[in-house]
Amino acid sequence: MTDSPVIALAKDLISRQSVTPEDAGCQQLMIERLEALGFTVEVMVFEDTTNFWARRGHTAPLFAFAGHTDVVPAGNLAHWDTPPFEPTIKDGLLYGRGAADMKGSLACMLVAVERFIAEHPDHKGSIGFLITSDEEGPFINGTTRVVDTLMARNEPIDMCIVGEPSSTLEVGDVVKNGRRGSITGDLKVKGIQGHVAYPHLARNPVHQALPALAELAAKEWDKGNDYFPPTSFQIPNLHSGTGASNVIPGEFDVQFNFRFSTELTDESIKEQVHAILDNHGLDYELKWTLSGHPFLTDQGALLDAVVKGVAAVNNKAPQLLTTGGTSDGRFIARMGAQVVELGPVNATIHKVNECVSVADLEKLTDMYQQTLNHLLG
Amino acid sequence: MTDSPVIALAKDLISRQSVTPEDAGCQQLMIERLEALGFTVEVMVFEDTTNFWARRGHTAPLFAFAGHTDVVPAGNLAHWDTPPFEPTIKDGLLYGRGAADMKGSLACMLVAVERFIAEHPDHKGSIGFLITSDEEGPFINGTTRVVDTLMARNEPIDMCIVGEPSSTLEVGDVVKNGRRGSITGDLKVKGIQGHVAYPHLARNPVHQALPALAELAAKEWDKGNDYFPPTSFQIPNLHSGTGASNVIPGEFDVQFNFRFSTELTDESIKEQVHAILDNHGLDYELKWTLSGHPFLTDQGALLDAVVKGVAAVNNKAPQLLTTGGTSDGRFIARMGAQVVELGPVNATIHKVNECVSVADLEKLTDMYQQTLNHLLG
Repeated sequence: MTDSPVIALAKDLISRQSVTPEDAGCQQLMIERLEALGFTVEVMVFEDTTNFWARRGHTAPLFAFAGHTDVVPAGNLAHWDTPPFEPTIKDGLLYGRGAADMKGSLACMLVAVERFIAEHPDHKGSIGFLITSDEEGPFINGTTRVVDTLMARNEPIDMCIVGEPSSTLEVGDVVKNGRRGSITGDLKVKGIQGHVAYPHLARNPVHQALPALAELAAKEWDKGNDYFPPTSFQIPNLHSGTGASNVIPGEFDVQFNFRFSTELTDESIKEQVHAILDNHGLDYELKWTLSGHPFLTDQGALLDAVVKGVAAVNNKAPQLLTTGGTSDGRFIARMGAQVVELGPVNATIHKVNECVSVADLEKLTDMYQQTLNHLLG
Repeated sequence: MTDSPVIALAKDLISRQSVTPEDAGCQQLMIERLEALGFTVEVMVFEDTTNFWARRGHTAPLFAFAGHTDVVPAGNLAHWDTPPFEPTIKDGLLYGRGAADMKGSLACMLVAVERFIAEHPDHKGSIGFLITSDEEGPFINGTTRVVDTLMARNEPIDMCIVGEPSSTLEVGDVVKNGRRGSITGDLKVKGIQGHVAYPHLARNPVHQALPALAELAAKEWDKGNDYFPPTSFQIPNLHSGTGASNVIPGEFDVQFNFRFSTELTDESIKEQVHAILDNHGLDYELKWTLSGHPFLTDQGALLDAVVKGVAAVNNKAPQLLTTGGTSDGRFIARMGAQVVELGPVNATIHKVNECVSVADLEKLTDMYQQTLNHLLG
């Protein structure tokens, strides 16, 4: 059986060993096909990362697909049933590293656009592709720098579909229409080291910090809203002590992370945390790292088109969720763009024997094409 | 100037490199002098540790001096002004590893007994020496096993002076008439590991344990009593986390230590800790290690004699305290013995340039001799 165009392209991409930040020729393959469709392509290399921005059309609205050609490492090859970079179809599933995250989506986008342009060579507005090879890595030289470049020359994306694997059981059952924000605090509480037998000569920073940490962990930060679950606070790491059982430690290191809804901002979180720490009279240093602001794509042209596009294929509307980790969508949302994530089932991503349903990739291509029809057809 | 007998003996002991569990001939030196005084000496070797028990007399009461010939390592030799195993007198201070802890005391005990026997060859009761070379180490094969041997043959010590450096500013300003108990708990709180972005699928053991730990740290365990400060609870070590900021940890390790007064027992402490942990619904494992029960030598013949012996030299009574770390006194107290600790100033013990006042060693010899006069003269 000959592979369909979308499966053939997905296989071609999977066979290239593009572990972050390597691209391994994936982007060149996409660029050649886009140029053949009349796209103007700019390759943007930042440090070790290759990205490209492609555009067809000069008018608004500017709709873009966004995605990444890099994949996470394969891990222990002995655990794979088939070699991770040799795409293999078995029982209707396409196996290989990146099959679901997100080379399958890239193939669907490209084939959908080819079909759409064949039907609508003079489509409304503009179509863009924002492709990076840095999504699974430090996300410093990838999407965020392409976004900076576009913003600097006043070329904002109006609407964007990110091809991240958003689905749970079958393609299109879930569309992500936003993501929570993420901010991490690295706290160092200072005490005075000493001998356990002479507690009056020392000050145990663990004892001092416990009530404050208990308060932070028990606090209801918000109740969430229609689109977001309540903001969550978690302590992933903490450490104190010299290892000796007779030494009162001098320092206590605690790391905490917030996944926060649009009910809060990073500033309001910082303010409340400092108030609690200060209220407990702690002597501390606190370093904040903001990984992303929360964003939400509420009712509007994009969400409307995506919901209709999914429903046209599945005969039912997708569930709209904002759960899960961060994605490059947060950077694109900075432009003021409407952003949604629609991609295949995420059950096997980052695991051995990563795979995607062949039928789902055909459906996803249809969903993307239907969405384009609604927006620019 | 020729060294006095006590200084000459102290120097001889310091010059032997008896880092735990080595004795380096210190005990043989003491044994020869004790045998010359009519002591019957039994060398007791347990595993890597050499100890001896010496006794003069067959009647009660049995009064004993207890001490150790081993010393802690010298550490970085470059930081010493004089070589640690070359005893050196400078400005009235005798320098060397073990000068204060406790070869100085050993010399004082021996010279005091020589003088006492010269004056009282037919003294009342019996005099003993319980000497180990395992006090600074794991204290497994030292005093505790000699005590076991004496108890097994029904030869209990009635009264004992341990030569540990009990003094703060000048010799005899503090006598320790008891020690707190020490018990350590190693707690492992169990949760369910997961992704920070999906807190509903995980259970953070840190969050669960914080209120219980805060309660333990804030609790007043007792108010102490006339001789003991309040029982203290300290967390010397705690750890949780994988190092990654996006992983909710699956386990939380906490170590805590109690230094407890005679108002509590190890059993009552365990019961109260378990009640608090259970009350907070924690899933946990808890391993206890008892380092020593508390003991107290209240008013009685020994304390009376020691206080008079110190006062005869210093013209003022010593302060009676139970503060500080553990000592071998806890093992001897198990026999039902009255136990006090009287030794030189502890300001430099375990440090570089460890030293003891030459004048203080002469005074300490007098104090020991005066105590013997009161008890057995």
